[in-house]
Amino acid sequence: MRWDLRPYPAPAGSGQRGKEENHEEATMKALIYHGPGRRSWEEVPEPRLTAPTDAVVRVDAVTICGTDLHILKGDVPAVTPGRILGHEAVGTVTATGDAVTTVKEGDRVLVSCVSACGRCRYCRESMYGQCLGGGGWILGHLIDGTQAEYVRVPFADTSTYLLPEGVEDEAALMLADILPTAYEVGVLNGRVRPGDTVVVVGAGPIGLAAIATAQLFTPSHIVAVDLAQSRLEAAKQFGADVVVGAGDDASAAVAELTGGLGADVAIEAVGVPETFEQCTRLIRAGGHVANVGVHGESVPLRLQDLWIRNVTITTGLVDTYSTPALLDMITARRLDPGKFVTHRFPLDEMSAAYDTFSAPEATGALKVVLTR
Amino acid sequence: MRWDLRPYPAPAGSGQRGKEENHEEATMKALIYHGPGRRSWEEVPEPRLTAPTDAVVRVDAVTICGTDLHILKGDVPAVTPGRILGHEAVGTVTATGDAVTTVKEGDRVLVSCVSACGRCRYCRESMYGQCLGGGGWILGHLIDGTQAEYVRVPFADTSTYLLPEGVEDEAALMLADILPTAYEVGVLNGRVRPGDTVVVVGAGPIGLAAIATAQLFTPSHIVAVDLAQSRLEAAKQFGADVVVGAGDDASAAVAELTGGLGADVAIEAVGVPETFEQCTRLIRAGGHVANVGVHGESVPLRLQDLWIRNVTITTGLVDTYSTPALLDMITARRLDPGKFVTHRFPLDEMSAAYDTFSAPEATGALKVVLTR
Repeated sequence: MRWDLRPYPAPAGSGQRGKEENHEEATMKALIYHGPGRRSWEEVPEPRLTAPTDAVVRVDAVTICGTDLHILKGDVPAVTPGRILGHEAVGTVTATGDAVTTVKEGDRVLVSCVSACGRCRYCRESMYGQCLGGGGWILGHLIDGTQAEYVRVPFADTSTYLLPEGVEDEAALMLADILPTAYEVGVLNGRVRPGDTVVVVGAGPIGLAAIATAQLFTPSHIVAVDLAQSRLEAAKQFGADVVVGAGDDASAAVAELTGGLGADVAIEAVGVPETFEQCTRLIRAGGHVANVGVHGESVPLRLQDLWIRNVTITTGLVDTYSTPALLDMITARRLDPGKFVTHRFPLDEMSAAYDTFSAPEATGALKVVLTR
Repeated sequence: MRWDLRPYPAPAGSGQRGKEENHEEATMKALIYHGPGRRSWEEVPEPRLTAPTDAVVRVDAVTICGTDLHILKGDVPAVTPGRILGHEAVGTVTATGDAVTTVKEGDRVLVSCVSACGRCRYCRESMYGQCLGGGGWILGHLIDGTQAEYVRVPFADTSTYLLPEGVEDEAALMLADILPTAYEVGVLNGRVRPGDTVVVVGAGPIGLAAIATAQLFTPSHIVAVDLAQSRLEAAKQFGADVVVGAGDDASAAVAELTGGLGADVAIEAVGVPETFEQCTRLIRAGGHVANVGVHGESVPLRLQDLWIRNVTITTGLVDTYSTPALLDMITARRLDPGKFVTHRFPLDEMSAAYDTFSAPEATGALKVVLTR
C-alpha cells in the first residue's frame, strides 16, 4: 500500500465551529460502493470534522471519473465496500477545524482529487500526489469522497482552492482532476515545446484534456489516435489537426509530418500494453513518452531498440501543483474547460449519471456534471 | 538502420595536405573483424582523407570497449566483416582536409566515440550521438575505427578535442567513451542531486565510471550492486559506500538507507531484463531509472505499479556534450580517470590485450590501454 493513511489525530477538546453542530445526527445522500459491480445512491450520516485541519464542504457540483468506473469493476482493491466514491467537487465550506486558516464557512472552493498534508518531503517538493503525511489521492479511495451532499476534506488549507467569482462551477470542476492530470502528467512531463509534433493516443476525456493543454505550448501538430470515430471528431474540436483512426497507419502519418523522424512527444491516455508500445514506436530519438493511462498489467518495453535512442518515459499521478495556474488561465480566458461537459443531472440522479457516463459510445458522454 | 551514413562527398580536386601524400601506398597494422568470434591484427592500407572535413590521426593510445566484445559475439550486425574495430583513441593529427580549421598536423587530440556533423538538428541540440548528417557512433561500427596505427576521423572539427598539456594520454583516453557515457547517460540523465541515494547496478567499467562521476554531485549514498565480489571491491575504491553482493537483499539495503522510501536514482549498467527490473523496484516514487546498459531483448515494465509513482526512465547513447567539461575537470584534478587502467600493452599486442580484457574475472581487467 502506497497511500499510508495516517489521519491527523484530533487533539482532545479540539473545537469544531460553524454549521457542524447543527447536523450532529443529520443524514445525507451519497453514492456508495458495495463491492465490484454494485453501487447505490443512499442515505448515510453526514460527515463531521475529525481533525483540526479538516473542512466540511457542501457539494454544489460533482462529476464522475473513469477511475470511478475502474473502482466499480473491482480494479482498485484498496477501495472497500461502504466507501463513498468521488474525488472531484466544487462546493461551499460549511465547517472548518480550528487549524484551518485559508478557507472559512461560506467560501466557494474547488475540492481537488489530491489532498496534501503540505508538510512531508513530497509535499515540500510539490509532489502532492505522493504525500507521505496521509494525503495523496485519498478522497473516494481511502476515505469517503465527493459523490455526496457533503464531504469531509482533510488538510483543507492545502487541499482546497478558493474560487474567483469569474470562474463558473462547471469550469472549475474540470480542474479537480482531468485538466491538471492531462497537463502535468501528459503535457508537462512530456515537455511539449513550441513546434513539436505531439501524438495523443486515446481521445477520451483525459486525452482530450491533453490535446487542449498541449496547445498552450503551440506545437506544430497534434495527432490524435483512437479507434472510435466519435472520439476523433471530439479530438478535432479540442484542437487535434491530424486524426488517425482504426484503419489508418499512425507511424506513416507521424512520419509524414516529421520528415520521417517521429513525434517529439507521445502521450499515452488509454492504459493498455498495445497503446503504450505504440507510443514508444511513434517517438523520435530524443523523444518523450508521457504515460497518463492507468495500467493493470506489465508492458513489454523494447529496450533492444530504445537503449540507444535517448528516450525519456515518465509516469505519474497528478500532483495538482498546476491547479492555481490553470485557474488563472480560466479567469484569463486562455482555457475553456466547460466544453468537456456534455451531460448535466441533478445530484439526486447520480445513478442515471453513472449509466450515461459508463456508456460513452452510446451517449457521447465526455464529462457529466451533477448539481444541487 | 539509425545511423544513416551519408559520407560527405569529396569535391573534385579537393586538396589534401600534410603527411598524406607520403604514404599513398603505405600499410599499417589494424584489428580486423572477420565475423562473429573472429578477429586478427593484420596489415591493411593506411587510411586517407576522403572528405575536406576529415582528419587522419596517428593512434598513440587506444583501448578496447565492452561494445567491441558485443560486436565480436555478433550482437551488432551493422558491423560487417573487414571492419577495423575501435572507437576510442588519443593520437596525433597527421593530415587534415581543406575544410578543417580547429586541428592541424601535429596536434595531440582525443578521438571521441561519437562523431558529429555539427550541422543537423540533433547536433544543434547537443544530441551528437543521434547525428543525422553521417555522424553518431560510426567509428569501428559503420566505418573503420581506432584499433589501428592510423584512423580517418570524419568531421574532425566537431569530432576531436585538442588535449591540454597537463592531461595524460591514459586519462584522456577514458574520455573517449566510458566517462562521458556513464556521466551523461547515467548521472546526468538520472539527475543525481546532492543528498541523493544513488544505486548503481553493475560495477563493470561503466558502472564504476557512474560511481566516480555521481560523486561530482555529492550524493549521500552510492550503493553498488553486483554479483562479483572483485567488482564490489573496485566499486568501493571508486567511491561506493555500500555494496550489495550476490547473497544480499538490495531492496532491504536501500530501504535502510532511505527510511523505506527507495533510491532517488538507479543507474542500470548491465543490460539484461533482471537488472533493469531491479532498478525499477529500487527507486522511490518520483525517482529516476537511468539506463546505460546495452540491451538485446525486450524487458517487462511493471506499469501496473509504476503508472502512479511519478517515475522517469531514460535511455541514451552518449552525446559527448560533456567531454570539454570532463577534460577541464581532469586539468583541475577533480577527476582521475587514470585509475581505470589496469593493464598496458604495446599496440602490436592487440590480440593479447583482447584476451586480457575479455576475461576480467580471471585478469581483473577494467580498462586495457595499448600504446605505440
